[in-house]
Amino acid sequence: MKLTKKITLPESEMPRQWYNILADMPNAPQPLLNPKTRQPLKPEEMEPLFAKELVAQEFSKERFIDIPDEVLTLLKIYRPTPLVRASGLEKALDTPAKIYFKNESVSPVGSHKLNSAIPQAYYNAKQGIKHITTETGAGQWGSALSIACQHFGLDLNVFMVKNSYNLKPYRKIVMRTYGGQVHASPSNVTKFGRDILAKDPDCQGSLGIAISEAVEMALETPNCRYTLGSVLNHVLLHQTIIGLEAEKQLELTGDYPDKVIACFGGGSNFSGISFPFLRHNLKDGKKTRFMAAEPAACPKLTKGKMEYDFGDTAGMTPLIPMYTLGHDFQPAQIHAAGLRYHGGGQIVSQLKQDGLIESYTVEQKDALNAGLLFSRCEGIIPAPESTHAIALAVQEALKAKEAGKEEVILFNLSGHGLLDLATYEMLLDGKL
Amino acid sequence: MKLTKKITLPESEMPRQWYNILADMPNAPQPLLNPKTRQPLKPEEMEPLFAKELVAQEFSKERFIDIPDEVLTLLKIYRPTPLVRASGLEKALDTPAKIYFKNESVSPVGSHKLNSAIPQAYYNAKQGIKHITTETGAGQWGSALSIACQHFGLDLNVFMVKNSYNLKPYRKIVMRTYGGQVHASPSNVTKFGRDILAKDPDCQGSLGIAISEAVEMALETPNCRYTLGSVLNHVLLHQTIIGLEAEKQLELTGDYPDKVIACFGGGSNFSGISFPFLRHNLKDGKKTRFMAAEPAACPKLTKGKMEYDFGDTAGMTPLIPMYTLGHDFQPAQIHAAGLRYHGGGQIVSQLKQDGLIESYTVEQKDALNAGLLFSRCEGIIPAPESTHAIALAVQEALKAKEAGKEEVILFNLSGHGLLDLATYEMLLDGKL
Repeated sequence: MKLTKKITLPESEMPRQWYNILADMPNAPQPLLNPKTRQPLKPEEMEPLFAKELVAQEFSKERFIDIPDEVLTLLKIYRPTPLVRASGLEKALDTPAKIYFKNESVSPVGSHKLNSAIPQAYYNAKQGIKHITTETGAGQWGSALSIACQHFGLDLNVFMVKNSYNLKPYRKIVMRTYGGQVHASPSNVTKFGRDILAKDPDCQGSLGIAISEAVEMALETPNCRYTLGSVLNHVLLHQTIIGLEAEKQLELTGDYPDKVIACFGGGSNFSGISFPFLRHNLKDGKKTRFMAAEPAACPKLTKGKMEYDFGDTAGMTPLIPMYTLGHDFQPAQIHAAGLRYHGGGQIVSQLKQDGLIESYTVEQKDALNAGLLFSRCEGIIPAPESTHAIALAVQEALKAKEAGKEEVILFNLSGHGLLDLATYEMLLDGKL
Repeated sequence: MKLTKKITLPESEMPRQWYNILADMPNAPQPLLNPKTRQPLKPEEMEPLFAKELVAQEFSKERFIDIPDEVLTLLKIYRPTPLVRASGLEKALDTPAKIYFKNESVSPVGSHKLNSAIPQAYYNAKQGIKHITTETGAGQWGSALSIACQHFGLDLNVFMVKNSYNLKPYRKIVMRTYGGQVHASPSNVTKFGRDILAKDPDCQGSLGIAISEAVEMALETPNCRYTLGSVLNHVLLHQTIIGLEAEKQLELTGDYPDKVIACFGGGSNFSGISFPFLRHNLKDGKKTRFMAAEPAACPKLTKGKMEYDFGDTAGMTPLIPMYTLGHDFQPAQIHAAGLRYHGGGQIVSQLKQDGLIESYTVEQKDALNAGLLFSRCEGIIPAPESTHAIALAVQEALKAKEAGKEEVILFNLSGHGLLDLATYEMLLDGKL
């Protein structure tokens, strides 16, 4: 096989269905619970908060779910994304491992988040919803949802974790340019935000707080629904297009991954690249390892407890069975703001408990140094979140070198870091 | 023909030669002159400053010049770039015109500049050169050259116009991340810079000054050459890959452009998209119009004089026959820093004089408002430079609507604006 740098999939080969791993899991996850009754949550109880079809996907056990034509047309603006042989990185590491990455940074908003923002906006618009709320950590999800809502004529309010709002000023301009309204969270716009500010005016916020605010506004605004960019089953479902494309692209090379690696915040990009390959472990006897790269500052899968917990700080969401650090956990102000979520979600947590996926922690500085190496070898400056995956991939490639083993490593480049350059400046100036 | 949003060219169809318009011009441009003797400049006089093969390309009359394999391999990291039917913009304008844009913003550095940075670094490395200098306005060229030099193991010093250095702090971090050394120009690193600072410590710099500094350093450093990201014939040559690809992609749609539009700074992206189509005007009787969009603050083609002038402020370069505002012209501090150059280059100026291309001026605010509209319709936030092309394309599409005329407009999206978001924030806040 000739060494190819970029493996392009023709548009005609783009997947037309998402893959739902719920159909194939050996142990079904425990159900979400209504926090008041502690009874399994019914779909109709979620419908005041989420669009109907998204709720249906949340509970679906169908193995494959059709991607609507209108969604497919918009996804084709940037998909299929390239699979790239990281030959520059391989050379720098002098490793016998073959390293591939799926380049989700080519989306016009710079990350994989658009993969779910488009269908979420679509299903809400189709139902006649006019207003949307959401939260965002690093701003990747908020940016993606802003342009998706703009496309479908939906009004959007984004609650952005205050720490990120201040650290990543360019992100909020992206959202505003795309027509989104952005509030630093905790904000004065919701009762929950005002209560927090009354107690702690300097509170820097968290994803959990921002979710509480967005949920409150969605429930109190007529014709409004809430959306989430990770954690939930329907979000992971939409993201499987990453792995489904990667599977077809790897077929073109003749390789199959021994290890699949992605950073882990709420699970959206990790699940997206992993589940289509994990299916073959479950059904076809493949032995691929699936490795989540968590920040050492927020190690929910690696060091959290498997238990029922809330998805938000205020305790407004259903109870979710998940690996969690506690819904009031306040992670350190690391630069990978998109990984600062306390819990792992229903599906991923069950897979972890069943030993079907693994998790590892990465220190911030190691992650960013791996990102710097990658940018010089491959020409793309990665998002701080994605650098965690790169660091773990580098570590595995070096292990392969020690062992003299030619293995195939696939990682997901979830986004670029062009709006996180202040972080790289601190690294270059020795201030991290 | 089915409406297709993105027209992808298979990698196997990528052009393997650049197109040299010098072979087909009805009137050859006047020669460059040695400023001391005022005699036509000989290739060997340029070789202390530029790599030999680049000098050969500068003087070549060959119609097609082979792209070296090593260059092609690197270009394939992001090429062929997509041609996109701007159906969102068409809908917003309710125009019968078909609008296409070539999306050069997908390059990992965010602009078309990498198309010439890769071959320039390649030819220098091949010759055994170790050190490179250059200047950069908006930072797009400096970013592209930084990663290209990193790839070929070349050391790079970039002189960045001080106004941009301060207005666009993220750009210098990109260059540093890729391993380039960046100096705010005028700097203390060169005699010319020190002289200017002695007279005017607050001087905000210009491309002309930055070129003088880079040339001085190149001439005084052993085993060092200078590089330029626009204006010169060999740069325009490298950029023709844009138009050559677009030509093949339009063939797939059955359309042919009535108007080709690009922003104009020194001519690199304008020439890149125009020349391959202009060839068919010159040889095959096509009647396409080629429209350069200049900033009203720096209208060299529209309001400059055709005469011999220096390429830099200090008067260190050869004399160039070109439309110029004067080599000491200090344009206003507009946000499209990449368009703040005083002259039009040898080839483009001759074409303009012969009536084969046209130029138009665009006011900054009109340009950026067109950019805002585009970002909401097409999902991509354009570079301030590129918004000039968008504004002219919008204007022409609205004229077509008035005339009820179905015409085909092709413009070049030279880069994205993710590192220019402060400009968009000023626009959104009504501060422009």
